[in-house]
Amino acid sequence: MKLYDSAIAPNPRRVRIYLAEKGINVPIEQVDIAKGVNRQPAFLAKNPFGGVPVLELDDGTCIAESIAICRYFEETNPKPPLFGEGAKERALVEMWQRRMELGLLSLVAGCFQHTSEFFKGRIKQVPDWGALCKENALARMQWLDGELASRKFIAGDKYTVADITALVAIDFGRASQIRVAPEQKNLVRWHQEVSSRPSAKA
Amino acid sequence: MKLYDSAIAPNPRRVRIYLAEKGINVPIEQVDIAKGVNRQPAFLAKNPFGGVPVLELDDGTCIAESIAICRYFEETNPKPPLFGEGAKERALVEMWQRRMELGLLSLVAGCFQHTSEFFKGRIKQVPDWGALCKENALARMQWLDGELASRKFIAGDKYTVADITALVAIDFGRASQIRVAPEQKNLVRWHQEVSSRPSAKA
Repeated sequence: MKLYDSAIAPNPRRVRIYLAEKGINVPIEQVDIAKGVNRQPAFLAKNPFGGVPVLELDDGTCIAESIAICRYFEETNPKPPLFGEGAKERALVEMWQRRMELGLLSLVAGCFQHTSEFFKGRIKQVPDWGALCKENALARMQWLDGELASRKFIAGDKYTVADITALVAIDFGRASQIRVAPEQKNLVRWHQEVSSRPSAKA
Repeated sequence: MKLYDSAIAPNPRRVRIYLAEKGINVPIEQVDIAKGVNRQPAFLAKNPFGGVPVLELDDGTCIAESIAICRYFEETNPKPPLFGEGAKERALVEMWQRRMELGLLSLVAGCFQHTSEFFKGRIKQVPDWGALCKENALARMQWLDGELASRKFIAGDKYTVADITALVAIDFGRASQIRVAPEQKNLVRWHQEVSSRPSAKA
Protein backbone atom coordinates (compact mmCIF):
# COMPACT_ATOMS: atom_id res chain seq x y z
CA MET A 1 0.00 0.00 0.00
CA LYS A 2 1.25 3.48 -0.88
CA LEU A 3 -0.17 6.99 -0.64
CA TYR A 4 0.78 9.43 -3.40
CA ASP A 5 0.97 12.73 -1.60
CA SER A 6 1.88 16.38 -2.08
CA ALA A 7 3.01 18.45 0.86
CA ILE A 8 1.92 21.73 -0.80
CA ALA A 9 -1.65 20.86 -1.89
CA PRO A 10 -4.73 21.06 0.34
CA ASN A 11 -6.47 17.77 -0.48
CA PRO A 12 -3.62 15.44 0.51
CA ARG A 13 -3.51 17.19 3.88
CA ARG A 14 -7.10 16.05 4.49
CA VAL A 15 -5.98 12.44 4.20
CA ARG A 16 -2.83 12.97 6.28
CA ILE A 17 -4.87 14.53 9.10
CA TYR A 18 -7.43 11.72 8.87
CA LEU A 19 -4.70 9.05 9.08
CA ALA A 20 -3.09 10.85 12.05
CA GLU A 21 -6.44 10.92 13.89
CA LYS A 22 -6.81 7.19 13.24
CA GLY A 23 -3.20 6.38 14.12
CA ILE A 24 -2.69 4.68 10.75
CA ASN A 25 0.73 4.66 9.10
CA VAL A 26 0.89 4.36 5.31
CA PRO A 27 4.07 4.56 3.18
CA ILE A 28 4.07 7.90 1.39
CA GLU A 29 5.53 8.97 -1.94
CA GLN A 30 5.71 12.66 -2.78
CA VAL A 31 4.45 13.73 -6.21
CA ASP A 32 6.08 16.94 -7.46
CA ILE A 33 2.99 18.83 -8.63
CA ALA A 34 4.98 22.06 -9.05
CA LYS A 35 6.93 20.25 -11.78
CA GLY A 36 3.70 18.76 -13.19
CA VAL A 37 4.60 15.13 -12.44
CA ASN A 38 0.89 14.56 -11.72
CA ARG A 39 0.09 15.50 -15.34
CA GLN A 40 2.50 12.96 -16.83
CA PRO A 41 1.31 9.61 -18.25
CA ALA A 42 2.66 7.45 -15.40
CA PHE A 43 0.58 9.32 -12.84
CA LEU A 44 -2.45 9.80 -15.10
CA ALA A 45 -2.60 6.00 -15.36
CA LYS A 46 -3.25 6.01 -11.61
CA ASN A 47 -5.70 8.94 -11.68
CA PRO A 48 -6.87 10.29 -15.05
CA PHE A 49 -7.89 13.57 -13.36
CA GLY A 50 -4.27 14.08 -12.27
CA GLY A 51 -5.19 14.92 -8.70
CA VAL A 52 -3.43 13.95 -5.51
CA PRO A 53 -3.78 12.10 -3.21
CA VAL A 54 -4.09 8.60 -4.66
CA LEU A 55 -3.99 5.45 -2.55
CA GLU A 56 -2.48 2.46 -4.35
CA LEU A 57 -3.41 -0.88 -2.83
CA ASP A 58 -1.14 -3.93 -2.90
CA ASP A 59 -3.21 -5.43 -5.74
CA GLY A 60 -2.56 -2.33 -7.85
CA THR A 61 -6.02 -0.80 -7.38
CA CYS A 62 -5.78 2.98 -7.27
CA ILE A 63 -8.27 4.91 -5.17
CA ALA A 64 -8.41 8.62 -5.96
CA GLU A 65 -10.44 11.34 -4.21
CA SER A 66 -9.53 12.22 -0.63
CA ILE A 67 -12.88 11.27 0.83
CA ALA A 68 -12.94 7.93 -0.99
CA ILE A 69 -9.52 7.18 0.53
CA CYS A 70 -10.74 8.18 4.00
CA ARG A 71 -13.84 6.02 3.61
CA TYR A 72 -11.64 3.06 2.67
CA PHE A 73 -9.79 3.40 5.96
CA GLU A 74 -13.05 4.04 7.84
CA GLU A 75 -14.15 0.56 6.75
CA THR A 76 -10.83 -1.15 7.52
CA ASN A 77 -10.12 0.80 10.75
CA PRO A 78 -13.50 1.90 12.12
CA LYS A 79 -12.24 3.25 15.48
CA PRO A 80 -12.45 6.08 16.32
CA PRO A 81 -15.37 6.78 13.97
CA LEU A 82 -14.79 9.96 11.95
CA PHE A 83 -17.83 9.58 9.66
CA GLY A 84 -20.37 9.16 12.50
CA GLU A 85 -22.19 6.12 13.86
CA GLY A 86 -25.66 4.94 12.88
CA ALA A 87 -27.75 5.96 9.87
CA LYS A 88 -28.79 9.41 11.07
CA GLU A 89 -25.44 10.54 12.44
CA ARG A 90 -23.59 9.21 9.40
CA ALA A 91 -25.96 11.09 7.09
CA LEU A 92 -25.45 14.31 9.06
CA VAL A 93 -21.66 13.96 9.03
CA GLU A 94 -21.86 13.38 5.28
CA MET A 95 -24.03 16.49 4.94
CA TRP A 96 -21.57 18.62 6.90
CA GLN A 97 -18.51 17.19 5.17
CA ARG A 98 -20.14 18.05 1.85
CA ARG A 99 -21.11 21.55 3.03
CA MET A 100 -17.52 22.18 4.09
CA GLU A 101 -16.18 20.77 0.85
CA LEU A 102 -18.61 22.10 -1.76
CA GLY A 103 -19.50 25.24 0.17
CA LEU A 104 -16.06 26.27 1.47
CA LEU A 105 -13.01 24.26 0.32
CA SER A 106 -14.10 24.32 -3.33
CA LEU A 107 -14.55 28.12 -3.15
CA VAL A 108 -11.16 28.63 -1.49
CA ALA A 109 -9.56 26.35 -4.08
CA GLY A 110 -11.48 28.03 -6.92
CA CYS A 111 -10.14 31.42 -5.83
CA PHE A 112 -6.57 30.11 -5.75
CA GLN A 113 -6.83 28.28 -9.08
CA HIS A 114 -8.27 31.27 -10.92
CA THR A 115 -6.23 34.10 -9.39
CA SER A 116 -2.82 32.69 -8.39
CA GLU A 117 0.47 32.77 -10.28
CA PHE A 118 0.86 29.04 -9.56
CA PHE A 119 -2.00 28.12 -11.90
CA LYS A 120 -1.15 30.66 -14.62
CA GLY A 121 -0.53 28.62 -17.76
CA ARG A 122 -1.65 25.39 -16.07
CA ILE A 123 -5.40 25.98 -16.46
CA LYS A 124 -7.58 28.54 -18.23
CA GLN A 125 -8.01 31.13 -15.50
CA VAL A 126 -11.22 33.17 -15.12
CA PRO A 127 -10.23 35.87 -12.60
CA ASP A 128 -13.82 37.10 -12.16
CA TRP A 129 -14.77 33.60 -11.09
CA GLY A 130 -11.87 33.52 -8.63
CA ALA A 131 -13.00 36.84 -7.15
CA LEU A 132 -16.58 35.57 -6.77
CA CYS A 133 -15.30 32.42 -5.08
CA LYS A 134 -13.44 34.58 -2.56
CA GLU A 135 -16.50 36.75 -1.86
CA ASN A 136 -18.66 33.66 -1.38
CA ALA A 137 -16.07 31.92 0.80
CA LEU A 138 -15.89 34.91 3.14
CA ALA A 139 -19.70 35.02 3.37
CA ARG A 140 -19.73 31.29 4.11
CA MET A 141 -17.20 31.74 6.92
CA GLN A 142 -19.39 34.45 8.45
CA TRP A 143 -22.32 32.03 8.35
CA LEU A 144 -20.19 29.23 9.80
CA ASP A 145 -19.26 31.46 12.73
CA GLY A 146 -22.96 31.65 13.61
CA GLU A 147 -23.41 27.89 13.26
CA LEU A 148 -20.53 27.23 15.66
CA ALA A 149 -22.19 29.29 18.40
CA SER A 150 -24.30 26.26 19.30
CA ARG A 151 -21.87 23.36 19.07
CA LYS A 152 -18.27 22.37 19.59
CA PHE A 153 -17.45 20.89 16.18
CA ILE A 154 -18.76 21.31 12.63
CA ALA A 155 -21.18 18.37 12.69
CA GLY A 156 -21.99 18.30 16.42
CA ASP A 157 -20.26 17.36 19.67
CA LYS A 158 -17.67 15.11 18.09
CA TYR A 159 -14.66 15.77 15.87
CA THR A 160 -15.35 14.32 12.41
CA VAL A 161 -14.11 14.38 8.84
CA ALA A 162 -16.17 17.57 8.38
CA ASP A 163 -13.77 19.35 10.76
CA ILE A 164 -10.82 18.08 8.73
CA THR A 165 -12.24 19.51 5.50
CA ALA A 166 -13.10 22.83 7.15
CA LEU A 167 -9.65 23.14 8.77
CA VAL A 168 -7.86 22.46 5.49
CA ALA A 169 -10.14 24.92 3.67
CA ILE A 170 -9.55 27.72 6.16
CA ASP A 171 -5.80 27.17 6.35
CA PHE A 172 -5.51 27.03 2.54
CA GLY A 173 -7.51 30.27 2.33
CA ARG A 174 -4.46 32.17 3.61
CA ALA A 175 -2.81 31.71 0.20
CA SER A 176 -5.61 33.91 -1.23
CA GLN A 177 -6.02 36.29 1.72
CA ILE A 178 -9.20 34.54 2.82
CA ARG A 179 -8.92 34.73 6.61
CA VAL A 180 -11.01 34.26 9.72
CA ALA A 181 -11.88 37.70 11.16
CA PRO A 182 -10.97 38.26 14.85
CA GLU A 183 -14.61 39.14 15.62
CA GLN A 184 -15.74 35.70 14.39
CA LYS A 185 -15.30 34.42 17.94
CA ASN A 186 -16.86 31.00 17.43
CA LEU A 187 -14.86 30.30 14.31
CA VAL A 188 -11.68 31.49 16.06
CA ARG A 189 -12.41 29.21 19.04
CA TRP A 190 -13.12 26.22 16.79
CA HIS A 191 -10.04 26.87 14.64
CA GLN A 192 -7.79 27.05 17.70
CA GLU A 193 -9.28 23.84 19.04
CA VAL A 194 -8.86 21.74 15.91
CA SER A 195 -5.45 23.29 15.16
CA SER A 196 -4.18 22.25 18.61
CA ARG A 197 -4.79 18.56 17.92
CA PRO A 198 -1.55 16.74 17.00
CA SER A 199 -3.16 15.66 13.71
CA ALA A 200 -3.22 19.28 12.48
CA LYS A 201 0.55 19.13 11.95
CA ALA A 202 0.10 16.36 9.39
CA MET B 1 -40.61 11.49 7.05
CA LYS B 2 -40.87 13.86 4.12
CA LEU B 3 -38.73 14.64 1.08
CA TYR B 4 -38.66 18.25 -0.09
CA ASP B 5 -38.35 17.95 -3.82
CA SER B 6 -38.30 19.97 -7.03
CA ALA B 7 -39.35 18.37 -10.30
CA ILE B 8 -37.30 20.86 -12.37
CA ALA B 9 -33.91 20.67 -10.59
CA PRO B 10 -31.23 18.02 -11.24
CA ASN B 11 -30.19 17.11 -7.69
CA PRO B 12 -33.62 16.00 -6.44
CA ARG B 13 -33.84 13.66 -9.43
CA ARG B 14 -30.76 11.85 -8.13
CA VAL B 15 -32.62 11.01 -4.93
CA ARG B 16 -35.84 10.08 -6.76
CA ILE B 17 -33.95 7.67 -9.05
CA TYR B 18 -32.12 6.22 -6.03
CA LEU B 19 -35.38 5.65 -4.15
CA ALA B 20 -36.95 4.06 -7.24
CA GLU B 21 -34.00 1.66 -7.56
CA LYS B 22 -34.42 0.74 -3.89
CA GLY B 23 -38.23 0.49 -4.08
CA ILE B 24 -38.58 2.98 -1.23
CA ASN B 25 -41.62 5.25 -1.02
CA VAL B 26 -41.27 8.57 0.80
CA PRO B 27 -43.95 11.30 1.02
CA ILE B 28 -42.91 14.16 -1.22
CA GLU B 29 -43.54 17.90 -1.00
CA GLN B 30 -42.74 20.08 -3.99
CA VAL B 31 -40.76 23.26 -3.32
CA ASP B 32 -41.40 25.98 -5.92
CA ILE B 33 -37.82 27.01 -6.67
CA ALA B 34 -38.90 29.07 -9.70
CA LYS B 35 -40.78 31.29 -7.21
CA GLY B 36 -37.82 31.23 -4.82
CA VAL B 37 -39.62 29.39 -2.01
CA ASN B 38 -36.29 27.69 -1.21
CA ARG B 39 -34.76 31.10 -0.47
CA GLN B 40 -37.44 32.04 2.09
CA PRO B 41 -36.86 31.75 5.87
CA ALA B 42 -39.10 28.71 6.41
CA PHE B 43 -37.07 26.63 3.98
CA LEU B 44 -33.70 28.13 4.96
CA ALA B 45 -34.40 26.88 8.49
CA LYS B 46 -34.35 23.37 7.02
CA ASN B 47 -31.30 23.97 4.79
CA PRO B 48 -29.35 27.23 5.16
CA PHE B 49 -27.86 26.72 1.68
CA GLY B 50 -31.39 26.81 0.22
CA GLY B 51 -30.87 23.70 -1.89
CA VAL B 52 -33.26 20.87 -2.62
CA PRO B 53 -33.68 18.05 -1.88
CA VAL B 54 -34.00 17.94 1.92
CA LEU B 55 -35.13 14.88 3.86
CA GLU B 56 -37.01 15.72 7.05
CA LEU B 57 -37.12 12.87 9.55
CA ASP B 58 -39.99 12.32 11.97
CA ASP B 59 -37.95 13.81 14.83
CA GLY B 60 -37.52 17.03 12.83
CA THR B 61 -33.91 16.36 11.78
CA CYS B 62 -33.28 17.76 8.31
CA ILE B 63 -30.75 16.01 6.07
CA ALA B 64 -29.64 18.11 3.10
CA GLU B 65 -27.33 17.09 0.23
CA SER B 66 -28.54 14.43 -2.20
CA ILE B 67 -25.75 11.98 -1.45
CA ALA B 68 -26.20 12.32 2.32
CA ILE B 69 -29.89 11.48 1.84
CA CYS B 70 -29.03 8.47 -0.32
CA ARG B 71 -26.49 7.29 2.25
CA TYR B 72 -29.14 7.51 4.96
CA PHE B 73 -31.33 5.12 3.00
CA GLU B 74 -28.33 2.92 2.13
CA GLU B 75 -27.94 2.32 5.88
CA THR B 76 -31.64 1.75 6.58
CA ASN B 77 -32.35 -0.23 3.37
CA PRO B 78 -29.04 -1.84 2.34
CA LYS B 79 -30.43 -4.03 -0.48
CA PRO B 80 -29.73 -3.75 -3.35
CA PRO B 81 -26.40 -2.08 -2.54
CA LEU B 82 -25.92 1.07 -4.62
CA PHE B 83 -22.73 2.26 -2.87
CA GLY B 84 -20.84 -1.03 -3.30
CA GLU B 85 -20.00 -3.82 -0.84
CA GLY B 86 -16.78 -4.19 1.13
CA ALA B 87 -14.08 -1.61 1.80
CA LYS B 88 -12.44 -1.60 -1.65
CA GLU B 89 -15.62 -1.64 -3.73
CA ARG B 90 -17.24 1.02 -1.56
CA ALA B 91 -14.18 3.25 -1.92
CA LEU B 92 -14.20 2.83 -5.70
CA VAL B 93 -17.92 3.60 -5.94
CA GLU B 94 -17.32 6.71 -3.82
CA MET B 95 -14.45 7.69 -6.14
CA TRP B 96 -16.60 7.30 -9.23
CA GLN B 97 -19.63 9.02 -7.71
CA ARG B 98 -17.36 11.95 -6.84
CA ARG B 99 -15.78 11.98 -10.30
CA MET B 100 -19.23 12.10 -11.87
CA GLU B 101 -20.37 14.80 -9.44
CA LEU B 102 -17.32 17.07 -9.19
CA GLY B 103 -16.03 16.31 -12.67
CA LEU B 104 -19.30 16.35 -14.65
CA LEU B 105 -22.51 17.32 -12.84
CA SER B 106 -20.92 20.36 -11.21
CA LEU B 107 -19.62 21.52 -14.61
CA VAL B 108 -23.01 21.03 -16.27
CA ALA B 109 -24.69 22.87 -13.39
CA GLY B 110 -22.02 25.60 -13.44
CA CYS B 111 -22.68 26.22 -17.13
CA PHE B 112 -26.44 26.48 -16.53
CA GLN B 113 -26.09 28.69 -13.46
CA HIS B 114 -23.73 31.14 -15.15
CA THR B 115 -25.27 31.32 -18.64
CA SER B 116 -29.03 30.69 -18.30
CA GLU B 117 -31.88 33.17 -18.09
CA PHE B 118 -33.23 31.21 -15.10
CA PHE B 119 -30.33 32.29 -12.87
CA LYS B 120 -30.15 35.88 -14.13
CA GLY B 121 -30.76 38.07 -11.10
CA ARG B 122 -30.69 35.06 -8.74
CA ILE B 123 -26.90 34.78 -8.53
CA LYS B 124 -23.94 36.80 -9.75
CA GLN B 125 -23.32 35.25 -13.14
CA VAL B 126 -19.82 34.94 -14.64
CA PRO B 127 -20.53 33.95 -18.27
CA ASP B 128 -16.86 33.17 -19.01
CA TRP B 129 -16.92 30.66 -16.19
CA GLY B 130 -20.11 29.10 -17.57
CA ALA B 131 -18.47 28.77 -21.00
CA LEU B 132 -15.38 27.12 -19.49
CA CYS B 133 -17.60 24.70 -17.56
CA LYS B 134 -19.25 23.71 -20.83
CA GLU B 135 -15.92 23.18 -22.60
CA ASN B 136 -14.63 21.08 -19.71
CA ALA B 137 -17.87 19.07 -19.44
CA LEU B 138 -17.69 18.16 -23.13
CA ALA B 139 -14.05 17.10 -22.75
CA ARG B 140 -14.99 15.02 -19.71
CA MET B 141 -17.75 13.27 -21.68
CA GLN B 142 -15.26 12.40 -24.41
CA TRP B 143 -12.98 10.89 -21.75
CA LEU B 144 -15.90 9.02 -20.18
CA ASP B 145 -16.73 7.47 -23.56
CA GLY B 146 -13.27 5.89 -23.53
CA GLU B 147 -13.65 4.69 -19.94
CA LEU B 148 -16.94 2.96 -20.80
CA ALA B 149 -15.27 0.90 -23.53
CA SER B 150 -14.09 -1.56 -20.88
CA ARG B 151 -17.05 -1.89 -18.55
CA LYS B 152 -20.84 -1.87 -18.40
CA PHE B 153 -21.44 0.81 -15.79
CA ILE B 154 -19.55 3.82 -14.48
CA ALA B 155 -17.93 2.10 -11.49
CA GLY B 156 -17.73 -1.45 -12.86
CA ASP B 157 -20.09 -4.31 -13.67
CA LYS B 158 -22.87 -3.14 -11.37
CA TYR B 159 -25.26 -0.20 -11.49
CA THR B 160 -24.42 2.19 -8.64
CA VAL B 161 -25.07 5.69 -7.39
CA ALA B 162 -22.26 6.83 -9.75
CA ASP B 163 -24.52 5.92 -12.69
CA ILE B 164 -27.34 7.96 -11.16
CA THR B 165 -25.14 11.06 -10.87
CA ALA B 166 -23.81 10.63 -14.42
CA LEU B 167 -27.30 10.12 -15.87
CA VAL B 168 -28.67 13.22 -14.17
CA ALA B 169 -25.63 15.23 -15.27
CA ILE B 170 -25.91 14.21 -18.91
CA ASP B 171 -29.68 14.72 -19.07
CA PHE B 172 -29.42 18.13 -17.40
CA GLY B 173 -26.72 19.07 -19.91
CA ARG B 174 -29.39 19.36 -22.61
CA ALA B 175 -30.57 22.63 -21.03
CA SER B 176 -27.15 24.08 -21.95
CA GLN B 177 -26.64 22.25 -25.29
CA ILE B 178 -24.16 19.87 -23.68
CA ARG B 179 -24.96 16.61 -25.49
CA VAL B 180 -23.53 13.15 -26.04
CA ALA B 181 -22.12 12.96 -29.59
CA PRO B 182 -23.42 10.07 -31.78
CA GLU B 183 -19.85 8.86 -32.34
CA GLN B 184 -19.37 8.41 -28.59
CA LYS B 185 -20.63 4.85 -28.97
CA ASN B 186 -19.83 3.66 -25.46
CA LEU B 187 -21.46 6.64 -23.83
CA VAL B 188 -24.51 6.28 -26.11
CA ARG B 189 -24.78 2.58 -25.20
CA TRP B 190 -24.47 3.29 -21.48
CA HIS B 191 -26.94 6.18 -21.62
CA GLN B 192 -29.53 4.04 -23.41
CA GLU B 193 -29.06 1.27 -20.87
CA VAL B 194 -29.46 3.38 -17.74
CA SER B 195 -32.26 5.43 -19.32
CA SER B 196 -34.24 2.25 -20.05
CA ARG B 197 -34.41 1.33 -16.34
CA PRO B 198 -37.81 2.21 -14.82
CA SER B 199 -36.02 4.38 -12.23
CA ALA B 200 -34.94 6.83 -14.95
CA LYS B 201 -38.51 8.13 -15.15
CA ALA B 202 -38.36 9.26 -11.53
